[in-house]
Amino acid sequence: MAGIVYLVGAGPGDPDLITVKGLRYLRQADVVAYDRLVHPDLLREARPQAERIDVGKAPGRHRYRQDEINRLLVDRARAGKTVVRLKGGDPFVFGRGGEECQALAAAGVPFAVVPGITSAVAAPAAAGIPVTQRELAQSFTVVTGHTARGGAGGADDLDWAALARMDTLVFLMGVAALPVITRRLIAHGRSPATPVAVISCATTGHEQLVLGTLADIIAEAAGVATPATIVIGPVAALAREIGPAALAAPAPATPALWARTPQQPVLTFAAPAGMEAGA
Amino acid sequence: MAGIVYLVGAGPGDPDLITVKGLRYLRQADVVAYDRLVHPDLLREARPQAERIDVGKAPGRHRYRQDEINRLLVDRARAGKTVVRLKGGDPFVFGRGGEECQALAAAGVPFAVVPGITSAVAAPAAAGIPVTQRELAQSFTVVTGHTARGGAGGADDLDWAALARMDTLVFLMGVAALPVITRRLIAHGRSPATPVAVISCATTGHEQLVLGTLADIIAEAAGVATPATIVIGPVAALAREIGPAALAAPAPATPALWARTPQQPVLTFAAPAGMEAGA
Repeated sequence: MAGIVYLVGAGPGDPDLITVKGLRYLRQADVVAYDRLVHPDLLREARPQAERIDVGKAPGRHRYRQDEINRLLVDRARAGKTVVRLKGGDPFVFGRGGEECQALAAAGVPFAVVPGITSAVAAPAAAGIPVTQRELAQSFTVVTGHTARGGAGGADDLDWAALARMDTLVFLMGVAALPVITRRLIAHGRSPATPVAVISCATTGHEQLVLGTLADIIAEAAGVATPATIVIGPVAALAREIGPAALAAPAPATPALWARTPQQPVLTFAAPAGMEAGA
Repeated sequence: MAGIVYLVGAGPGDPDLITVKGLRYLRQADVVAYDRLVHPDLLREARPQAERIDVGKAPGRHRYRQDEINRLLVDRARAGKTVVRLKGGDPFVFGRGGEECQALAAAGVPFAVVPGITSAVAAPAAAGIPVTQRELAQSFTVVTGHTARGGAGGADDLDWAALARMDTLVFLMGVAALPVITRRLIAHGRSPATPVAVISCATTGHEQLVLGTLADIIAEAAGVATPATIVIGPVAALAREIGPAALAAPAPATPALWARTPQQPVLTFAAPAGMEAGA
């Protein structure tokens, strides 16, 4: 029997923000290969006998290399297994899901992608920030902070002149790069008064929101936990207006997050009646 | 008893791509106010006695105005109802969700946002296109085609010079604006050979995928159904490599979509054990 690999997006943190389809595939899996940021409650949704593989760390070494993950997926599928590759956020937003698909396609292994909620949209939303808003932002751009680590004088591959002219900028995994990001955007003409929000551990019950500007966000966000999402642009200021906590206590430096997600066992659906034939 | 409004993202088309949390809130709603693009299967998930309001069209006129929708949400919540505002895609990606939150906050009505899968990521994924990919795209920018309707000589508010320099561009609702989009990007220096994909009715079982370049996509995409998502950039060419159908029949002009979503009643979970106290 031929196996199959489903690349499933686990969403931004809250296990309840996986899709209905992603949860169903997870419950049917023989093998679950998961990343560091996937919530433990989701792993409990897999069948007791399912093989669970933490590809974020392996015995005796730091983590699986990408080529090892690719080979693992191919090998398990060729052994007839239904494999769920469970990735934080969305598989195709900085998740190397494209590379895994290329490896599976090259090996002739059937696969399908189940999208997930990306933190690029959900983390701002959890803080009361819409990434688009009439009059304020007609577009948004999502960048990974990993590419902005050129350091003080170093180079990176990002087109900062063009990025500085975008309406809303969202940086994922960018806290370490915040000095580089703010300096280069200002150097390329973005106003130092541009609102900035840093949202940490969004939708997990341990959220932090820090509001500031390009000029002062580094000081404001000192010590914030990771992973964090950075939002730059006029929409970031809407956190003060849309967040009910901010309404009660006008414009504090770090208002409590509204729409806080309770950490409770929310995946209480019964198991589906039967296995699907595969997507 | 005070009511509450949940802005819930319905996802990109396939009803099975709503989140577990969004589905639960939908099943608890007294009132469901929904948009035109929401799948009918999702509406059947609400309780039989729930009031269903199609705000995409109203008797005797085309559709509710935004201020009428805002008032509707406020009024029902003040009457003690649990209201789900069900929006296609994500509430904060071109959905005017921010404006609805502003109205609710101004009225003192409790509310929360449940994110949804945006077509900006899911439609490309359904066609085998990752919006980011090492070596090819370190960022992606999402724009609504509605803002690109300046016509042949008309003006719009988009910064085309900066947009032309972005890695991956995703236009939502942009098919009518395709002539404007392609002409301006080329005029601002983007290569006419840049790969372009148009994905129509993604994840619904009626998908179409058209591949081309900035130079020829208008002819290729003539007559494509809406709603459609446009992807511009080198990642668009990955549809040929990652799509298994494209592997079997190399580089056809319009390969069948892989990872096709079966149109079957997939929301087969049992009802949750009890109502939550609210988020």
